[in-house]
Amino acid sequence: MAAWSDNIRKVEPYVPGEQPKDTDVIKLNTNENPYGPSQRVKNAIVDIDTLRLYPDPTASALVDVLAEYHGVDPSQVFVGVGSDDVLAMSFLTFFNSDKPILFPDITYSFYDVWAELFSIPYERPALDENFRLVKENYYRENGGIVFPNPNAPTGIYEDIKNVEDIVSHNKDSIVIVDEAYIDFGGESALGLIDKYDNLVVVRTFSKSRSMAGLRIGYAISNPVLIKALNDVKYSYNSYTMNRPSLIMGTESVKDDEYFKETVSKVVATRERFVEAIKPLDFTCLPSSANFVFATHKDIPAKEIFQAAKDAHIYVRYFDKPRIDNYLRISIGTDEEMDKFTEFLTNYIQER
Amino acid sequence: MAAWSDNIRKVEPYVPGEQPKDTDVIKLNTNENPYGPSQRVKNAIVDIDTLRLYPDPTASALVDVLAEYHGVDPSQVFVGVGSDDVLAMSFLTFFNSDKPILFPDITYSFYDVWAELFSIPYERPALDENFRLVKENYYRENGGIVFPNPNAPTGIYEDIKNVEDIVSHNKDSIVIVDEAYIDFGGESALGLIDKYDNLVVVRTFSKSRSMAGLRIGYAISNPVLIKALNDVKYSYNSYTMNRPSLIMGTESVKDDEYFKETVSKVVATRERFVEAIKPLDFTCLPSSANFVFATHKDIPAKEIFQAAKDAHIYVRYFDKPRIDNYLRISIGTDEEMDKFTEFLTNYIQER
Repeated sequence: MAAWSDNIRKVEPYVPGEQPKDTDVIKLNTNENPYGPSQRVKNAIVDIDTLRLYPDPTASALVDVLAEYHGVDPSQVFVGVGSDDVLAMSFLTFFNSDKPILFPDITYSFYDVWAELFSIPYERPALDENFRLVKENYYRENGGIVFPNPNAPTGIYEDIKNVEDIVSHNKDSIVIVDEAYIDFGGESALGLIDKYDNLVVVRTFSKSRSMAGLRIGYAISNPVLIKALNDVKYSYNSYTMNRPSLIMGTESVKDDEYFKETVSKVVATRERFVEAIKPLDFTCLPSSANFVFATHKDIPAKEIFQAAKDAHIYVRYFDKPRIDNYLRISIGTDEEMDKFTEFLTNYIQER
Repeated sequence: MAAWSDNIRKVEPYVPGEQPKDTDVIKLNTNENPYGPSQRVKNAIVDIDTLRLYPDPTASALVDVLAEYHGVDPSQVFVGVGSDDVLAMSFLTFFNSDKPILFPDITYSFYDVWAELFSIPYERPALDENFRLVKENYYRENGGIVFPNPNAPTGIYEDIKNVEDIVSHNKDSIVIVDEAYIDFGGESALGLIDKYDNLVVVRTFSKSRSMAGLRIGYAISNPVLIKALNDVKYSYNSYTMNRPSLIMGTESVKDDEYFKETVSKVVATRERFVEAIKPLDFTCLPSSANFVFATHKDIPAKEIFQAAKDAHIYVRYFDKPRIDNYLRISIGTDEEMDKFTEFLTNYIQER
């Protein structure tokens, strides 16, 4: 091998869920919203001629509308290319200690990938036997903390009191609460932003806002931490948010009625689906997200995963310790979930 | 200060050119194309309902069309959110040596920002007194090499033979040739890709393709280096290119006639403008880009910059050693350049 090969960064990349090009499938594998974006987004006009010009590097239209929506100052909002970009940028900005950062053993599978990418030491305290966070595990010296609430891929929401306990016990560290799924259940940590100067809350447009295809995520914190994030962002890429994202993202936030309506529909379908597969001997962890994490009494999850895929129904399977007998099933429309329930019923009967 | 402040990455961010919100200005400060994107881009249909779905993480439609356009295999193409994203990702991927990377003292001002961000040691061999690259300065041990051709902000193109000499003298390092402006003049290093396994060529849609507002850049190299780049990209953000970028970017590449026509117009206007300001005692460095780097016999560049801005004409001024008496003037339409020439004529007379 050439000498330069020694200088190439070696990584074990994150493997995203499959994005089948075949559109004739029921796609319940990457937690997308079954409903499209708001009519306001459809009515938004992207003037193609202006695409010759750079977008606003401060993304101020989007930042302002998000600040207003959440009742914070624009200096408290950072936007990026999906919450993955926001989280990666946060790791790069905030986690520069020799001490290990902490996140759960079972959680979003990108955290350890970012830690490896940026050579950040990390430890992964185990969730308890019910997949609950043990807050006391985070009461020790660390270089930072990150966890999702609700957690992924379990869907379990931790009470905001526990979140606050972790934040308040770690005043020397930055604590990132990844709220990708909070709109589907639970209380946000946003109410704690004014009280703690070490808290960063991260959100995404990809789930509750039906805009995974546009790539928009954001962080809310105090102006000091948001400035630190922006400084790093401007040291990486001045113009991350393209014009269509800025225009359509802004319109989306303005339609709160549609947003709440679709979120309610997804939540209602989730509860309906959980009840529907119970008689088939499935158990779901209590979900506050737009997916359920389900296990069957007898049939290995991997087998169901493969059989569903053969029937053109995509769900997510993680071949990882402790969760390798679970399926993560995104919540689609009632009709899609009925079809999946029907498939499961037949599959179990014929097996 | 709280203890966490020690762990925050401190950076001196890149400062992009101003993006005035006032549209009633002549904007010649960030090297955008005065002509809008192709009619094919205008005709492209972005189905808003599909925005609920993640984009193709491999960006294969765009990768395939670029591969075909450049006569390479799709495994040789990497795409990102503007060439800044592609370059930043390349620094992170390829420049992991303890030896310093090398780039010119006068060049794109993001290179040292990325080196600082990722803690990469670097040295900056000086351009000669005519702002030409001294290739022999790059014939020494290093951790990688990066330079633009044509260079920015000078606009000077180095003969492809010199580029090849640098690549061939550095078989143990990755050499990145940043060809943001190559469509406006000079021979691309793409012809050397098959010959050298240490060469990466970076391109952008922001200048010649009239699409700064969409944020698309790409790299072409051999499949080994492109895979290394993709591995790091997938470790950072699986879905960087949003659906509008994929759809409209692909359409743009398909309209080669319009592309060549607009590039020719910009080049013709550039030559016309250089001649027009000569009688006003301006000297321009020989430009192969969509901008000129101009200095006046008597009047300090900073004064002209400010006077032009007061007259709602934006050009770029760099308060940096060796170039602080130059203006970087993007090439607009003939009409815009005539207005700027008229302004300069009056300004010099009345001064």
